[in-house]
Amino acid sequence: MSSPDGATTVSIDALHSFCMEILCDLGVSSAHAQVTSDALTLADSWGTFTHGTKLLIGYAQRLKRGGLRTDTEPQVVKEGPAWAIVDGQATLGQVVSTFAMTKAVELANKSGFGYVGVRNSCHFGAAGVYSSLAAKENMVGLSMANDVPSVAAPGSRTSITGTNPFSYAIPAGKHPPILLDMAISTVAGGKIYAAQQLGKPIPDNWLIGPDGKPTSDASLYPANACLAPMTAHKGYGLALMIESLSAIMTGASLTWNVGSWMFDDGTKPTNHGGCFIAMNVAAMQPLDEFLTRVDGLIDEIHEAPKADGVERLYVPGEMEWERRQKALQEGIKLPADVVAQLRLVAKEFDIHPSWLQ
Amino acid sequence: MSSPDGATTVSIDALHSFCMEILCDLGVSSAHAQVTSDALTLADSWGTFTHGTKLLIGYAQRLKRGGLRTDTEPQVVKEGPAWAIVDGQATLGQVVSTFAMTKAVELANKSGFGYVGVRNSCHFGAAGVYSSLAAKENMVGLSMANDVPSVAAPGSRTSITGTNPFSYAIPAGKHPPILLDMAISTVAGGKIYAAQQLGKPIPDNWLIGPDGKPTSDASLYPANACLAPMTAHKGYGLALMIESLSAIMTGASLTWNVGSWMFDDGTKPTNHGGCFIAMNVAAMQPLDEFLTRVDGLIDEIHEAPKADGVERLYVPGEMEWERRQKALQEGIKLPADVVAQLRLVAKEFDIHPSWLQ
Repeated sequence: MSSPDGATTVSIDALHSFCMEILCDLGVSSAHAQVTSDALTLADSWGTFTHGTKLLIGYAQRLKRGGLRTDTEPQVVKEGPAWAIVDGQATLGQVVSTFAMTKAVELANKSGFGYVGVRNSCHFGAAGVYSSLAAKENMVGLSMANDVPSVAAPGSRTSITGTNPFSYAIPAGKHPPILLDMAISTVAGGKIYAAQQLGKPIPDNWLIGPDGKPTSDASLYPANACLAPMTAHKGYGLALMIESLSAIMTGASLTWNVGSWMFDDGTKPTNHGGCFIAMNVAAMQPLDEFLTRVDGLIDEIHEAPKADGVERLYVPGEMEWERRQKALQEGIKLPADVVAQLRLVAKEFDIHPSWLQ
Repeated sequence: MSSPDGATTVSIDALHSFCMEILCDLGVSSAHAQVTSDALTLADSWGTFTHGTKLLIGYAQRLKRGGLRTDTEPQVVKEGPAWAIVDGQATLGQVVSTFAMTKAVELANKSGFGYVGVRNSCHFGAAGVYSSLAAKENMVGLSMANDVPSVAAPGSRTSITGTNPFSYAIPAGKHPPILLDMAISTVAGGKIYAAQQLGKPIPDNWLIGPDGKPTSDASLYPANACLAPMTAHKGYGLALMIESLSAIMTGASLTWNVGSWMFDDGTKPTNHGGCFIAMNVAAMQPLDEFLTRVDGLIDEIHEAPKADGVERLYVPGEMEWERRQKALQEGIKLPADVVAQLRLVAKEFDIHPSWLQ
């Protein structure tokens, strides 16, 4: 169902089956393929196309070369009453992260609070996938991860930290969970790649050029430019917190020792770190009261006075949940750059879904 | 030791004694006065003058009117293996917050991780005071709090959330802790007041005017302007996380129900919420390894290539710890706006320290 702009509409189920087929062809177990397909299609259904099935082709390369393993399982290597350290065993980042958040929820069920630090993981896609897993259990969820440096520090000429994604989800009652998923850079790297593929110029606060000054030339990235940290020292500061909780606490690789899942030797693990936290609301107070108060906060925001020309005030994640609702009914309209990547991977695996013709 | 610009240099000890004297005069117990004086002078010694002893005059008004109580103690009202809920009993925010972080450290000693949610607190000054308490114990510390709305959401005409301060501290080995202390607005409200008092204009990304558009007129704040959230949806998103962890989880007041410690009826508690987290590094891995890795990260940043004209790259908190080191040796150079506030409070309490003449 291609449209003139190169976009294609596909049902979530059909897109999920497509992912499953490719991952299973690559030797990924059915359970791991399921979790990964869930994560990638959830991101696409939110409209977070930079972190959805577009990633599949890159993951496939690593799976073929062995840097991502199909013969191992993530393992808890150490644990206490309210924490655990997980070795991801170089399985897909989505597999490790889902395992870790599931463990965090288990700990929070026992102790009220669960922190799971992860090492030997890989690129995990959209951070919000994992925080929202906790929200499904009526827990507050936080997820974050480090990544290969691509973001400058205030005053630096080169990259200092990764975009180090950060997400939280807060369960609500009648409303969907409040859900933030952000990079600590002004924008995520995926947005720059999307601009490159679409040939679009970018605002001048997204990138720092090779001289340490802002630039609007997307083509410089990533070889000759770094992403800019949001609000300078604040984004940079959050990046170092995420680096510490995800990698220093866990024994994962730090900054330049993290492997690039896209550009580095595909035969080697990237050793990304991650941090997954679940807070058991019901252990601390009556769940109904909590959910009612979250609903009240959301209602209050919806009803607040708006600036001229603004029709609605959104709560974080609200646009994404509405897009998902629409996608469940009408399918996901995948943009042209995603379709192009999916065509490449379909060709490589010699599969021919009707929606991709 | 007044200088021509109205600044005054004072030793940390002398400033601490000044705070103690005033607080004890107000009926605050010696233990509470100690903790509060520690917090206020620590902030001043960091150069965070908007959150130091300048606050004393406002706290004094509330203490006199009874909205801040001197006859109660913060209490743990509920606890589990890795969490506690504290009722601050309307004591000074510094007292409640120090109590809460101390409890979080105790829980983390037992369970590896401690979350302490606080209700019935008040303005707590600099968030970094409490996260750094955890770092002193070689733990990772996080602290945050909600506040009366003063920050717009993207598209709103009025304030939606507080500046909702957020801080973390990561202990290091040979270096001082990495320490971030930030508001989720582009700048904290204290910076706007400082600009008002100094009659300085402000950049146009600090405030949103009454029409919902940016303004550089500091005098509009707070009656006719809101602070702008940093990077729009990201600062706004973080604000709602802090609101949830500090107030929804704890039973504290939310958004417009929080009392303004400065402007509202001084006879009533403000019922601020707070969130204090301690992570026990040594429970999860060898402490030496952790500290060495943090040091390595700091060294790596120091050695990274700098943009033209940039002499040093700083780690969050580094400037503050250096200012404190200098203050310990040479005293704190209090700027004119702080001196003016201290003169007012000294006059009111009829005390005449030589450094304030």
